[in-house]
Amino acid sequence: MYAVYLDASPITGFGVAKVIDSRDTNLKKGDLVWGTTGWEEYTFIEPTNALFKIEHTDIPLSYYTGILVAKAKKGEKVFVSAASGSVGQLVGQFAKLMGCYVVACAGSIEKVDLLKHKFGYDNAFNYKEEHDLDAALKRYFPEGIDIYFENIGGKMLDVVLLNTRNFGRIAVCGMISQYNQENHEGIKNLMEIIYKRVRVEGFLYFDYLLQYSKFLETVLPLIREGKMDYIEDLAEGLDNGPAALVGIFSGHNIGKQVIKVAHE
Amino acid sequence: MYAVYLDASPITGFGVAKVIDSRDTNLKKGDLVWGTTGWEEYTFIEPTNALFKIEHTDIPLSYYTGILVAKAKKGEKVFVSAASGSVGQLVGQFAKLMGCYVVACAGSIEKVDLLKHKFGYDNAFNYKEEHDLDAALKRYFPEGIDIYFENIGGKMLDVVLLNTRNFGRIAVCGMISQYNQENHEGIKNLMEIIYKRVRVEGFLYFDYLLQYSKFLETVLPLIREGKMDYIEDLAEGLDNGPAALVGIFSGHNIGKQVIKVAHE
Repeated sequence: MYAVYLDASPITGFGVAKVIDSRDTNLKKGDLVWGTTGWEEYTFIEPTNALFKIEHTDIPLSYYTGILVAKAKKGEKVFVSAASGSVGQLVGQFAKLMGCYVVACAGSIEKVDLLKHKFGYDNAFNYKEEHDLDAALKRYFPEGIDIYFENIGGKMLDVVLLNTRNFGRIAVCGMISQYNQENHEGIKNLMEIIYKRVRVEGFLYFDYLLQYSKFLETVLPLIREGKMDYIEDLAEGLDNGPAALVGIFSGHNIGKQVIKVAHE
Repeated sequence: MYAVYLDASPITGFGVAKVIDSRDTNLKKGDLVWGTTGWEEYTFIEPTNALFKIEHTDIPLSYYTGILVAKAKKGEKVFVSAASGSVGQLVGQFAKLMGCYVVACAGSIEKVDLLKHKFGYDNAFNYKEEHDLDAALKRYFPEGIDIYFENIGGKMLDVVLLNTRNFGRIAVCGMISQYNQENHEGIKNLMEIIYKRVRVEGFLYFDYLLQYSKFLETVLPLIREGKMDYIEDLAEGLDNGPAALVGIFSGHNIGKQVIKVAHE
């Protein structure tokens, strides 16, 4: 069974699990499911409507955890932050497959290397080494940014606002730099939203669950044909879960943080 | 000729003017036009593609200056700031006509009275008298805000973010509290955009010029039938223009600030 963090108390997350016994007629012993589970080795789940039966077992089970879709048009210039994380890595690859120019940032040389060479983005940079983020964005996006996939918030968002193009879009997936701060950073460049007619929109995965089968139809062939990669950072055993969870907030993980609770 | 501010140098604005002479075959001597003109009693305008011929002269000419459209659905809860200004006053009235619940704010008792009794909003308040804006919004929107029509920015935006409903929309027309500040106020509650899947979108009137005739078809009957009001703050003479312009930034004007340069 695999499990990944979602919230703190009680600790639940996206998990992949094997059914041991079931009173749900759609699920029988031995079936594999994904959905909201606990940070547990064994558990009782009721109701079962947050569980989805896994029909395709020829790709790693953990690939089912936490995948999201981003929208982009061919030729558009896309910037992805926290780009080696669970969501960011997929967003950039989707954008590349759609014919976009993709530049991404992450917080270490190792991650930047991954972005450039494994995911094949047009460019990537280590934001921790740039003391002038505005200059960095102007270097990689001299004509400005069409789409920013927002994962981190704070200063980066403020600087991206200065570098968006007219009718730019900012898809707000997360703001990991802000979650554990008592005083959130103030964003000062929101007037750019008017001048450049920018759209900023937040989203949560569970609004899109109905599109999941369509998503699988798109993604499974890409993974099977090797056109899409997915990097995981595997922590072995439930005991290592808390440290892995805390590590996410300082960028410790490379790829999606997964906790392997049991071997199948 | 009427003229209203748009930007500072050279001073141009929305104006209504009479053609004295023309080399454009679509415009002849005596025609009335609206569009981008200068802060001038007489002027030479070329090219003329920013001028629109006025076909309906039975409503006050200055009504053609600066009108914008807002979108809303029946039953939605709408909050309008700077609601007695040139744009705000129309937005709230449109929202009422569309069956929305409308609460607006402005900066004086006189303006609030106008909002409540002339425009017939469901409620209105003087934001300068509320030391806890969050409490004020919770009082008028106990279930939250579906649409915020943003004219002022700063603290008000920050507090609105705390009070939006899921899938709320913030139409960003202006942020008048911020234009003349060297250090813009930092907005700290942007994470609400994620949790509530809020859409924030900026717009500029000139992207919608092609819809102007459709807008007139909608608005002219409403004005003629008295279903829509429009309040102007008239400054007489070009000499009084600069003071009127400066007054806008401290909320001196009640209704749209218009400068009457010449009698027709």
